[in-house]
Amino acid sequence: MNVLNEKDRVLIFDTTLRDGEQSPGATMTHDEKLEIAELLDGMGVDIIEAGFPIASEGDFGAVNEIAKRTKNAVVCGLARAQMGDIDRCWEALKCARQPRIHTFIGTSPLHRAIPNLTQEEMADRIHDTVSHARNLCENVQWSPMDATRTEWEYLKRVCEIAIRAGASTINIPDTVGYTAPEESAHLIARLIEDVEGGSDVVWATHCHNDLGMATANALAAVGAGARQIECTINGLGERAGNTALEEVVMALKVRSDIMPFSTAIDTTKIMHVSRRVSTVSGFPVQMNKAIVGKNAFAHESGIHQDGMLKNSETFEIMQPEDVGLSGTSLPLGKHSGRAALRSKLAELGCDIGDNQLKDVFVRFKELADRKKEIFDDDIIALISATGDASVDRLQIVSLRVICGTGGPAEAMLEMDVDGAELSATATGDGPVDATFKAVRRLHSNSATLQLYQVNAVTEGTDAQATVSVRLEEDGVIATGQSANTDTVVASAQAYVSALNRLLLRREKFGPGMDAREITYKEWN
Amino acid sequence: MNVLNEKDRVLIFDTTLRDGEQSPGATMTHDEKLEIAELLDGMGVDIIEAGFPIASEGDFGAVNEIAKRTKNAVVCGLARAQMGDIDRCWEALKCARQPRIHTFIGTSPLHRAIPNLTQEEMADRIHDTVSHARNLCENVQWSPMDATRTEWEYLKRVCEIAIRAGASTINIPDTVGYTAPEESAHLIARLIEDVEGGSDVVWATHCHNDLGMATANALAAVGAGARQIECTINGLGERAGNTALEEVVMALKVRSDIMPFSTAIDTTKIMHVSRRVSTVSGFPVQMNKAIVGKNAFAHESGIHQDGMLKNSETFEIMQPEDVGLSGTSLPLGKHSGRAALRSKLAELGCDIGDNQLKDVFVRFKELADRKKEIFDDDIIALISATGDASVDRLQIVSLRVICGTGGPAEAMLEMDVDGAELSATATGDGPVDATFKAVRRLHSNSATLQLYQVNAVTEGTDAQATVSVRLEEDGVIATGQSANTDTVVASAQAYVSALNRLLLRREKFGPGMDAREITYKEWN
Repeated sequence: MNVLNEKDRVLIFDTTLRDGEQSPGATMTHDEKLEIAELLDGMGVDIIEAGFPIASEGDFGAVNEIAKRTKNAVVCGLARAQMGDIDRCWEALKCARQPRIHTFIGTSPLHRAIPNLTQEEMADRIHDTVSHARNLCENVQWSPMDATRTEWEYLKRVCEIAIRAGASTINIPDTVGYTAPEESAHLIARLIEDVEGGSDVVWATHCHNDLGMATANALAAVGAGARQIECTINGLGERAGNTALEEVVMALKVRSDIMPFSTAIDTTKIMHVSRRVSTVSGFPVQMNKAIVGKNAFAHESGIHQDGMLKNSETFEIMQPEDVGLSGTSLPLGKHSGRAALRSKLAELGCDIGDNQLKDVFVRFKELADRKKEIFDDDIIALISATGDASVDRLQIVSLRVICGTGGPAEAMLEMDVDGAELSATATGDGPVDATFKAVRRLHSNSATLQLYQVNAVTEGTDAQATVSVRLEEDGVIATGQSANTDTVVASAQAYVSALNRLLLRREKFGPGMDAREITYKEWN
Repeated sequence: MNVLNEKDRVLIFDTTLRDGEQSPGATMTHDEKLEIAELLDGMGVDIIEAGFPIASEGDFGAVNEIAKRTKNAVVCGLARAQMGDIDRCWEALKCARQPRIHTFIGTSPLHRAIPNLTQEEMADRIHDTVSHARNLCENVQWSPMDATRTEWEYLKRVCEIAIRAGASTINIPDTVGYTAPEESAHLIARLIEDVEGGSDVVWATHCHNDLGMATANALAAVGAGARQIECTINGLGERAGNTALEEVVMALKVRSDIMPFSTAIDTTKIMHVSRRVSTVSGFPVQMNKAIVGKNAFAHESGIHQDGMLKNSETFEIMQPEDVGLSGTSLPLGKHSGRAALRSKLAELGCDIGDNQLKDVFVRFKELADRKKEIFDDDIIALISATGDASVDRLQIVSLRVICGTGGPAEAMLEMDVDGAELSATATGDGPVDATFKAVRRLHSNSATLQLYQVNAVTEGTDAQATVSVRLEEDGVIATGQSANTDTVVASAQAYVSALNRLLLRREKFGPGMDAREITYKEWN
C-alpha cells in the first residue's frame, strides 16, 4: 500500500462488520454483510474488517466471500492469540487481493488474569502468534486489547515484540471507552517515540464512545501520529459503540485547517451507507446524531429558515450535499417509469441488476397507487424489503386484524408452513400481540422477543413503516425487517422473517452451533 | 453563590428548556417544562436556563413559573442585546430566589453582518445592554455568539466590555459545533489570561455536536479554566444538538484522576430525567448513545455475560447504578397494591400527589389485567399518559380498526367534539392512516404531520407502545404522545392530543401569535 508513504494520509479501517456486528442484536445475515462490504469498498474505506472467522461457520463464510469479492480495500479478519484462530483466519482470507490478519490479546492486568498468564508467558505468546501470522500473510496487524489500562512499560515491551515478530500495523484499543483526547494523543506520541521500530509501522487508534469522546480521542491520536482510525458506520458497536466513521471523516474534511490529514472516503456516500447499516442492523440513528441524524442539517428539519438568515454559512459548516443528502428531492409518483426509478436508485447510490429492478418496479407501482408522493426513503425501504423469499419455510398468505378500544385485538392469519396452508385466529393485547400469537399457533417456537421497533421511514400518514423484530432462541439471535404502509402487516412479515432466519440457522448449524454470542465477547 | 470559590467545582448550566427546546419539533408544553425544571433542580443542576421570555407568551409564562417554583438552582432567561428583551426577561425572572439574565449578540463577521453593525456600534450596544441588565439583576451572563469564529482581538475587546459593564459569567459558544478540543482549551486559556478582568468572572463553555466532539470540547475548556458547562439532557438541541449533560458529568466522575473537577449532579437521577426528556420532546435516544442508550451498559442488553468474565470491571468503567439504572427490577403485577406502586414510583424518581396516584393506580390495574409483567418503563409510560383531559375539545370515545393484507384498512371512530358525540368511518393505507382520516372527517384541519413515531417502551409482544405525533399548522408545532398496548389506539390518542394542543394555542394566542419558530432561531 503505497498510501503509507503519504505522511498525512489517514487510513480508514472500518469494523462495522466485526466490532459493530458484535452489538447485542445487530447480527446481520450473510447477504447483508456482503452488501455492506461492497458499499464500504465503494465509498473508499481502506481496510474492511470483515469478521472473526473462528467464531462461527457463518463468520468464516462471510469473511471468505468478502475476501473474494472486494475490489479495492484490504480485507481483514480477526484472530485471538491462538494458532488455530490464525490458521482459520488465513483460510478465510487467503483468496483476497489484499489480505490482512489482525491478531490481539488483552494486555492489561485485568485481561492478563483471564487466561492466567504471567507477563513473560504472554510476551512469548505474542511473539509466537504474530510470527505465525506473518509467516502466512505479509500484512499483519496486532492489538494489545485494553491498551489504555495496560502498564506503560509492559505496553511498550509487547509492542516491540509484535513489531519484531513482523506486525506492520499496531492498533491501540481503548477497549472500555475510558480515555480522553489529551491522554489518547500522549499515549500514541510516546509509543511512536519510545517503541523500538515504532517509526516503521502504522499506528492505529480504536476508540469506544462510553464517555462520548470516541471521535475526539481518535482525532487526537491522529494529531499525535496515528495514521489509521478504526471506526464503524453510525458508531455501531457494543455498549455506546465505536468511533463513528462519518464523524471522524467529516471532522477531518471540515477542519482541515487545524487537522491537515486526508482520507480516501467519498463523503457523498455517507448518508446512503448510514441508512443501509441502520436498516440491516436494526439500530436506528437518533435525530440529533452528528452528521447522519435527521436533524443534523438544519434545512432538513422542515422548519423554514427565517428571512434573517441570508447566508447559509451563518449556521452551517457543512453542506448537506457533502454527505450525500440531496438538497431537493425529485419526486417520483405513479406516472414515473422504470428509467426514472433507475435514475433515482442511482442517485441514492443503489446499482441493482435488471432482474431486481423489475421486481422493485412492480413493488414501486403498487406503492405509487396507494401513496401520493414517493420519497427517497420509500425507495430505500422498497429495496430493503426485496429479499429472496424462495427458501422461506414460513410465508404469510393473508392477515386480517381487528383492534381498537372495545376489547382485545383479534388476528386471523393464513400462513404457508413448509408448503401447507394453515390458518389460525388469536386475540391479544393490541394488533401486533394478536398477530404474533396467531403466528405462534401455526408455528410453535420458544423464541423470545428482544426488540420490536417501528420506524416511519417517510413523512405523511400513508408513510411506509419499517418494522424490526429481533428474536432470541437458545443463544441465537435473528433479526427480521419489513416495510409496508400497514404497520401490522409489516410487523407480521418482520416477525416471520426473523423466524425463518432462526430456522435456517438451526438447519445449517444445528442447535447451539452458532454459539458465538456465548464464547466470543467484546474483543476490542 | 459561594460555590464559585471552590476552584475545582464545575457549574452545570442546563439549557434543555431553551436551546434543547429549540430543536425543530421538540416543543414542550407549559406543564412539561415545569416538570423537567423540577427534575433538573432535583438532580443538582446549578443553573437552569428556562427559556427566552420575549419569544412568546408561552415562553414568558414558563420562565416565570419556573422562576417562582425553583428551590435550589439559579433560574436564567435568555435575552437578545435589546432593552425590550432584557426588560421582558427580568419581568419573568424577578420573582426567582436566584435570577440570572443571559444576554448575547453574534460577534463573528457573519453575525455582525445581520444587524449590519460596525465593530464600534456593536461594542456600544454590548456595553449598554449588559449595563442595563446589571442594573436590573445582580447576576448577569453574557455570550458572544459564534465566538469560535470571531476575530481574536475583537472577541477579547467585547469580553472586556461585558465584564466592565457588570457581567459575572462570560459564556463562549461554539455555535456551529466547529471547534476541536485543543482549540477549545486554547481559546479559554487565552481569554482568561489576556482579557482584563478575566480572572474575576466565571468562564462558560457552550458546545454543539456537529462534528461529534461537544463533550470533549467542553471538558477541554474546563481543563483550561472554564468553570461552567452549558449542556442539555440527551444532548437535545438543534442539528446534532448540544453537549450532553450526562456525558460531561459521568466523564468528570469516571476520570477524576485526570480531570479533578466536581459537579453537584446526583448521577443516579440521570436515567430517569433522560427518559422523561426523551418522552416529552419526542426525541428518542439511540441504543448506542453514551451513558443513557439502552445498550450503554452491557448487562442491560439481554445477552448473558459469558462465564469468562469474572470481573465486571473488565469491560465496565461505570456501574449501571451510578446513573440510576436499577440492577434488578422489582416486578409489579396485578396483585401489587397502591403502596407498592408508590414505592416503585419513588424508586423511579417520581413523587406524585395522592390524586394523581389514584388515577395512575386505576390505569396500572387496567394494564396489570392485560400484561403479565409490569416493567419500570411501563410505569413511566403510564405516568406520561396521565394528562389533564378536562380541557380537551376532542376526545376519543371508541375506535375499531380492521386491517391486514386483504385491502385498505378501515377505521370506525366515535369522538366527542366540543361535547357532541360524532362518528365516522374511513379507509386508508394501513390502520393508522385510516384512523387519522377518520379523525379528520370529524374535525377538519389543515395540520400537516411532521413526525409519526412508535417506541415499544417495554419488552414483550404485549409491550406498551408510546406513539409521538408532531403536527404543524400555520407555523405552530404541537406534539402529542400516548401510551397503550394497542399501537393503533395509542396513535389515535397521540394524534388527537396534538390536535387539542393546536386548538389550545390557537384559542390562547390567535393564529400566528406564537410565531417564535419564525422570528427566533438558533441563538447559541
